[in-house]
Amino acid sequence: MPTKARSTTPVMTVEELDHFMDTAFPQMRDGDGLTVIEAVGPLTARLRLRFSEKNLRPGGTISGPAMMALADYAMYAVVLAHIGPVALAVTTNLSINFLRKPGPADIVAEAKLMKLGNRLAVGDVVMTQEGLDGPVAHVTSTYSIPSGKA
Amino acid sequence: MPTKARSTTPVMTVEELDHFMDTAFPQMRDGDGLTVIEAVGPLTARLRLRFSEKNLRPGGTISGPAMMALADYAMYAVVLAHIGPVALAVTTNLSINFLRKPGPADIVAEAKLMKLGNRLAVGDVVMTQEGLDGPVAHVTSTYSIPSGKA
Amino acid sequence: MPTKARSTTPVMTVEELDHFMDTAFPQMRDGDGLTVIEAVGPLTARLRLRFSEKNLRPGGTISGPAMMALADYAMYAVVLAHIGPVALAVTTNLSINFLRKPGPADIVAEAKLMKLGNRLAVGDVVMTQEGLDGPVAHVTSTYSIPSGKA
Amino acid sequence: MPTKARSTTPVMTVEELDHFMDTAFPQMRDGDGLTVIEAVGPLTARLRLRFSEKNLRPGGTISGPAMMALADYAMYAVVLAHIGPVALAVTTNLSINFLRKPGPADIVAEAKLMKLGNRLAVGDVVMTQEGLDGPVAHVTSTYSIPSGKA
Repeated sequence: MPTKARSTTPVMTVEELDHFMDTAFPQMRDGDGLTVIEAVGPLTARLRLRFSEKNLRPGGTISGPAMMALADYAMYAVVLAHIGPVALAVTTNLSINFLRKPGPADIVAEAKLMKLGNRLAVGDVVMTQEGLDGPVAHVTSTYSIPSGKA
Repeated sequence: MPTKARSTTPVMTVEELDHFMDTAFPQMRDGDGLTVIEAVGPLTARLRLRFSEKNLRPGGTISGPAMMALADYAMYAVVLAHIGPVALAVTTNLSINFLRKPGPADIVAEAKLMKLGNRLAVGDVVMTQEGLDGPVAHVTSTYSIPSGKA
Repeated sequence: MPTKARSTTPVMTVEELDHFMDTAFPQMRDGDGLTVIEAVGPLTARLRLRFSEKNLRPGGTISGPAMMALADYAMYAVVLAHIGPVALAVTTNLSINFLRKPGPADIVAEAKLMKLGNRLAVGDVVMTQEGLDGPVAHVTSTYSIPSGKA
Repeated sequence: MPTKARSTTPVMTVEELDHFMDTAFPQMRDGDGLTVIEAVGPLTARLRLRFSEKNLRPGGTISGPAMMALADYAMYAVVLAHIGPVALAVTTNLSINFLRKPGPADIVAEAKLMKLGNRLAVGDVVMTQEGLDGPVAHVTSTYSIPSGKA
């Protein structure tokens, strides 16, 4: 098994990611453009979930499933940005801690890869809202990368 | 802090849960009735996510976020079934392992409480599909129960 | 990548596991024989941590690290029992929920594989004590299996 | 339930933590002084596990249980440093991702609280070794704080 280190430099731009996502995962975009890839950098990606009534729960808070979907999307984006368009990379684990009740506003998700190996990528995602004193949620997640694409 | 044991017998029926969910969390039902509470029992609840094109991903598989939403709903149902209608019980942690690629069919979620304390409830959810040799996903999750409702 | 199913039948006996552990991981045995492999079965293994003063914490409870070490050992045993003596199989994730305060007594750990793939094995471990009404801890864990040993 | 914010400033010094640990948890210190609290700061603590043959595994790597024990200790230290000497604070969840094979050297653990609530504290711990290009392990953990001490 080759174990050469992967590059920490992204190999896809935001525009290329957007195009790939639209083509390969039209369902993930929900046809509503609420989730936006804002930036990619060395081992990082930043996404934004725009506020929408449909993600609200009673009490004016964002639903847990909406945050989990955002985290999964953010991990997928940061992995693809660094290994290239591999539709078959799959989440094997996602663990989320809900930390603060989010308000009715955008959520920003900062994904960072802690490991980018030949078979597994592991990262975390910190979700914040403007004006809140600390993250609303923290996620760690593992992706399995198909062999032959390493 | 009172630490008397909670009962392991459900205090809400499927019909009462359905009614509470429809009233308190209309958004969770998506207006589409895809997620059905099928049964509650001592420390357990069984839910079904009916197959729908909208949860599909390329390759004919069910999306990860759809499974995470199902697990969150199943945990919420089994917690409420045993503590009564407390809209403010909140997920603090959810950890999912994706085990097998699900096919384009219903997913059954069996939620079981491993601990039902005064402040925290911890359970797991096993998700299966008919005909598959092993679960498609396994979830553990923790709920925080507001004091005063204990 | 070959994806033939692995057998669900153990390929090592308790005695073979014991011998391999003693040879390959003398440190894990602590020289004290407190952790005992009691049985292996289809996708399962049962271990016992004998009670010892050295694992006690104030209040007469077993320490968290002692339980985490037991869970790691139990997962390793159930994985090896089914793939054979592969010293290089490594834990990639271990997540533990502490559910009840254990008393000063033995802990039994029942490990079960939920997935035994070519690259990853995923299982859970339920830890109990005689006389307690529910598990003291629940663990899920993922092992990475070196290629070429599949 | 009072929900006043806790202070983000430590209320115990390294010396006070050391003294409390020695008194309340002599077993955690192993009588060997391998685990050292090096610093506390706003919502943070830094610990060091000194290299010792007894934590080695075959291949010259540090054992998983030694890293889990370090993480648990680091979380306990950062929680106590901010809420004061409360021996009854207990870990409810600990999830570790093993990222890189550590070498035969010290491990530094940087614990950071992401939430310090009245009932729950949630933090993560990044473990590194000098000279390695990325963390050897990443942990998230939740502590339950007894009421009446909030």
